[in-house]
Amino acid sequence: MTFQKLAVIGCGLMGGSFALGLKQAGLVKFIAGFSASEKTRQRAQQLQVIDMACDNVAQAVQGADLVLLAVPVSATRQSLEAIVPAMSANVLLMDVGSTKCDVVAAARETLGERLSCFVPAHPIAGKEVAGIDHAEGDLYKNRRTILTPLPETGATQMGQAQAVWQALGSTVFTMTPEAHDATFAAVSHLPHLLAFAAVNGLMAQTEGADFLRMAGPGFRDFSRIAGSDPAVWRDILSANQTEVLSQITHFKKALAQLEDTLKNQDTQALQSLIAQASQVRSAWKLQATDASNLASDA
Amino acid sequence: MTFQKLAVIGCGLMGGSFALGLKQAGLVKFIAGFSASEKTRQRAQQLQVIDMACDNVAQAVQGADLVLLAVPVSATRQSLEAIVPAMSANVLLMDVGSTKCDVVAAARETLGERLSCFVPAHPIAGKEVAGIDHAEGDLYKNRRTILTPLPETGATQMGQAQAVWQALGSTVFTMTPEAHDATFAAVSHLPHLLAFAAVNGLMAQTEGADFLRMAGPGFRDFSRIAGSDPAVWRDILSANQTEVLSQITHFKKALAQLEDTLKNQDTQALQSLIAQASQVRSAWKLQATDASNLASDA
Repeated sequence: MTFQKLAVIGCGLMGGSFALGLKQAGLVKFIAGFSASEKTRQRAQQLQVIDMACDNVAQAVQGADLVLLAVPVSATRQSLEAIVPAMSANVLLMDVGSTKCDVVAAARETLGERLSCFVPAHPIAGKEVAGIDHAEGDLYKNRRTILTPLPETGATQMGQAQAVWQALGSTVFTMTPEAHDATFAAVSHLPHLLAFAAVNGLMAQTEGADFLRMAGPGFRDFSRIAGSDPAVWRDILSANQTEVLSQITHFKKALAQLEDTLKNQDTQALQSLIAQASQVRSAWKLQATDASNLASDA
Repeated sequence: MTFQKLAVIGCGLMGGSFALGLKQAGLVKFIAGFSASEKTRQRAQQLQVIDMACDNVAQAVQGADLVLLAVPVSATRQSLEAIVPAMSANVLLMDVGSTKCDVVAAARETLGERLSCFVPAHPIAGKEVAGIDHAEGDLYKNRRTILTPLPETGATQMGQAQAVWQALGSTVFTMTPEAHDATFAAVSHLPHLLAFAAVNGLMAQTEGADFLRMAGPGFRDFSRIAGSDPAVWRDILSANQTEVLSQITHFKKALAQLEDTLKNQDTQALQSLIAQASQVRSAWKLQATDASNLASDA
């Protein structure tokens, strides 16, 4: 499997790392890149992440047999509209968005008969820092990538997509877009929202800054994801609104149980609620370390 | 400053590490230890953490000029009662509990005229694993230790307490017991409770285990403290009930704000709530790394 031309639409951390990874694996002959910002696309070329900086999407996509859409979620539909007229038949088209139902809906409305080319993808990878300067070919190594194919997705494209992410070092999982969004609402989107709320609840207090000064390693790890990018997380939470709201409801029930046992000084029930969480969390830790290298995350 | 005899009441991770640290610093000549479990105190002697294993508190405390109480919070009062008849005047007595108002109340009720000897202490240190086998002389190095003296606390004891924790490598802070408990309710006890609730809310769902299997590094860090010891956290949350309940109220307000903006699809307000948290968290990270070495935590 070698691609003649990769078109990267959105030359940021995710798109740039994808390009570098495929180049290093020797799987692509030529890489064209487009970014809305001229500075970004020229920087990508200067860093030799892409071979050619294009000043429009059509030019980048023309003749490409692999197209990666790596723009902010809010620019997905518009980018797909720009891509589709320039797309050849039998291209492999993928995105890297953190939510999938919204991307699939945009694809259904814009791609027409090219829908079969599209394999929605979510590589679970990232860095604290964004931008093309931080791109690296190993970003997807030892990570999970979720593919959420549609009934219309071509078998060839699906096979190629799996092979591409595996070549980048990812372990590939397949789910429906709905299962994907429910899963990540539970294990990623809700935790982010709770971390944002915890920091805001702290700082809403007069003594908040004094409290914060005494915070230790437990708080550091618990709140790390509260430092995430506001525009990115506005988009993710908004795109997955229904599932996130449903997870908030589940969380509030569990919080109310703990609060009630504490209010009622029912120490036995309190301990058993904590034990339940503690056992699950301790068991998970081992499982994840063994099975998927997640513990090696930076 | 050299102590003739240190009595460690409770030879676990905290007490054992205190003994080893003082021994390594050459600040103590002889160490007696008591633990309720015969096996534990003999293991402490075998590991040369203590010089003598005592089968009752009085024997350990007899003639000691430094007494460290390092038992589970629920055993504090009973231990103080056993210590006080054997205590000489001018001893330095400290504990290592994670909550302070409850310890102070127990001390007021049990110590009588020996109250002036007591300097309540909370070293912010620990490990994922408990027990004397994991004790190490460096446990308190580059950590914060909070002292919460009473109006009755002797100036000599207070000076010695500061010197002892500094000798172990801690940075020493002084607060009232009330300020301590409010602060740690906000930055430690609430985050633990939220992490417990998040795991329980996840597992209350039919698909919980499937969701959990896909959790990544964000969840790993966010939920790490959910793996904490149930009996320890039952005691901490119960001992600090009022402050923890107050922090839950602050948190719920902040969560409701985020939930409302999400429900109302007010993406601008959502982004600004996230930005608020993100800025605070990012700023804190730098501050803590610079100022206190907390980032070096295991």
